Amino acid sequence: MSNGITTLRWGVIATGLISSWFVDDLVLSRKDAKAYHIIQAIGSSSIEKARAFAEKHLPGQNPAIYGNYDEVYADSNVDIIYIGTPHALHKKNCLDAISADKHVLCEKAFTLNAREARVVFEAAKKRGVFIMEAMWTRFYPLTRTVISLIHEQRVIGDIQRVFCDFAMDQKIASLGPESRLKDPALGAGSLLDIGIYSLTWGLLGSDSGIGAEAQTPEIAAKQTIQDGFDVATSAILLYPNGRQAIVSSSNLVNPKSNIICTIQGSNGHIDIAGFPSAPEYFTLYLKDGSSKKYEFERPGRGFYWEADAVALDIAAGRVQNQIMPWAETVRVLELLDEIRRQGGAKFPQDEVA
Amino acid sequence: MSNGITTLRWGVIATGLISSWFVDDLVLSRKDAKAYHIIQAIGSSSIEKARAFAEKHLPGQNPAIYGNYDEVYADSNVDIIYIGTPHALHKKNCLDAISADKHVLCEKAFTLNAREARVVFEAAKKRGVFIMEAMWTRFYPLTRTVISLIHEQRVIGDIQRVFCDFAMDQKIASLGPESRLKDPALGAGSLLDIGIYSLTWGLLGSDSGIGAEAQTPEIAAKQTIQDGFDVATSAILLYPNGRQAIVSSSNLVNPKSNIICTIQGSNGHIDIAGFPSAPEYFTLYLKDGSSKKYEFERPGRGFYWEADAVALDIAAGRVQNQIMPWAETVRVLELLDEIRRQGGAKFPQDEVA
Repeated sequence: MSNGITTLRWGVIATGLISSWFVDDLVLSRKDAKAYHIIQAIGSSSIEKARAFAEKHLPGQNPAIYGNYDEVYADSNVDIIYIGTPHALHKKNCLDAISADKHVLCEKAFTLNAREARVVFEAAKKRGVFIMEAMWTRFYPLTRTVISLIHEQRVIGDIQRVFCDFAMDQKIASLGPESRLKDPALGAGSLLDIGIYSLTWGLLGSDSGIGAEAQTPEIAAKQTIQDGFDVATSAILLYPNGRQAIVSSSNLVNPKSNIICTIQGSNGHIDIAGFPSAPEYFTLYLKDGSSKKYEFERPGRGFYWEADAVALDIAAGRVQNQIMPWAETVRVLELLDEIRRQGGAKFPQDEVA
Repeated sequence: MSNGITTLRWGVIATGLISSWFVDDLVLSRKDAKAYHIIQAIGSSSIEKARAFAEKHLPGQNPAIYGNYDEVYADSNVDIIYIGTPHALHKKNCLDAISADKHVLCEKAFTLNAREARVVFEAAKKRGVFIMEAMWTRFYPLTRTVISLIHEQRVIGDIQRVFCDFAMDQKIASLGPESRLKDPALGAGSLLDIGIYSLTWGLLGSDSGIGAEAQTPEIAAKQTIQDGFDVATSAILLYPNGRQAIVSSSNLVNPKSNIICTIQGSNGHIDIAGFPSAPEYFTLYLKDGSSKKYEFERPGRGFYWEADAVALDIAAGRVQNQIMPWAETVRVLELLDEIRRQGGAKFPQDEVA
């Protein structure tokens, strides 16, 4: 404990963009922090990269620097491993961290498919460690407010349709075949990289239940496959109660609008602006013609909300989080598996040995 | 001929909303008219309704008034029949008009399914009369400009995705089961009523070819079925070249945006505003940050553009129109058939006797 609040000591695996965002956010000074986060160790493929990362993102701090991941797992001062590697490595990274009895926060997509996720959760269950998919967007106060408004307060009445598109020109053509954005063996494709956020909004907008409490939608999906990975995916989710979610992603083009998600109900609709991963504000439009804009303070990027939740879970002895429980991660991956089955994107890891 | 331009004498079948819009537009005084249109005869289910329609929409004119359709077909002063009945009646109305050797302009959806359309075109071919589906939106200067910009001038580069949604709260719950919007035997459902426009934009935006020159997209579709008809339909079209069109309709909710169609390419995108059936303007956004708004004069609603084209075709002795040829009507209905096959909406007329 530090200053009377829960303290969590993180070992960060991989020093790419997402890790830098995560670390930057965790060391921000925040007035409403629910936990105190220490970046205890940095592990990269080389000690030089780890050191450069620490110097840039943790100036004046003194994390342990490792030129591999195993030493991070073995560091007895590390409570939890943050995994910021490409999707395809998550399964191994998670299993290795779990074997070392570390708690784990693993970036999305948690694994390449549902089968891999089940293996990881089984291992975590056996060891009794906390583990969660780092679906940070679900922890945004904005997201919690939208969910409360539509499902608890039912301000837009009966929900009818949800639209979410995540488009981002990732300059695919300029990348080499070894890029995580192009190599299917690294989980390449728009769906797992950004489409997972569109799907998340489709699910959260359509259904108050998650994990075991979620309804199961029918799915119709198509993917544009180039060089073995999807550059665009679109999927329609049809719920037993008739609600539809139309979710899409593209890594060839930029967003068509600042409004990235719309949730339509019988009494109005909600437009969410920003990135599907990092929404900035939303506007509620009611049928009576009134509207209200909801704005939220967000220093940095907003990774600390999930990190705080993880810290509180671990302090309370929980092994999973109620906003992103294991069953929800598996369910989302099952839906992604089905979208890929219909759409045609395959990973070599889908083949069971 | 009148004032040196082609004249066409119309017999109007049915006196509902769409017929009133059509007639209002045809008798507008226009400075750029390519043809002169005379509403020669009005046919309704009762002579009172026909007379009331004529008094309201054709004041000071003197159309022949009939309390049935057959007398309109038989009127030797009528050149062409405009069919504004519910979809389910189109096949019979078309065949009756063709039997009387009249040319025909038949509202969309042309028939309930592709099979019915083939029967109608076969009959028209035998009699040598002109016939066309009244897909008026395709004749808008706005529409022709969009097509030219994206497919001929290629201003937005390689087209990647097209989105079009037509949503209109038609107060379904307040209607009786006999309404054309609720009775499957009358072709009820959002797809044939308004979704056909979303599909049209998906097709026009994705592909420069129509009819026999069109590429065939794969389709994935879902429909929300209530009381035997669809209240919401969503479909994904995937083209052989990877382009995707995401088209949707709902008669439960209103539009989520004034932008009803977006066409995204590698060099920018086009946002079309208004109704998918009657677009008002569009804006071209290029990757270099520049944008240009395209505005169009449109007195009335814009039904005269298709009517002028029909008049010129007939004057030239053509039996079909190159913007909406028979093969295109059949193709669109085949796509609608496939969307319904996947989505579950059925019409009693789908069953072949």
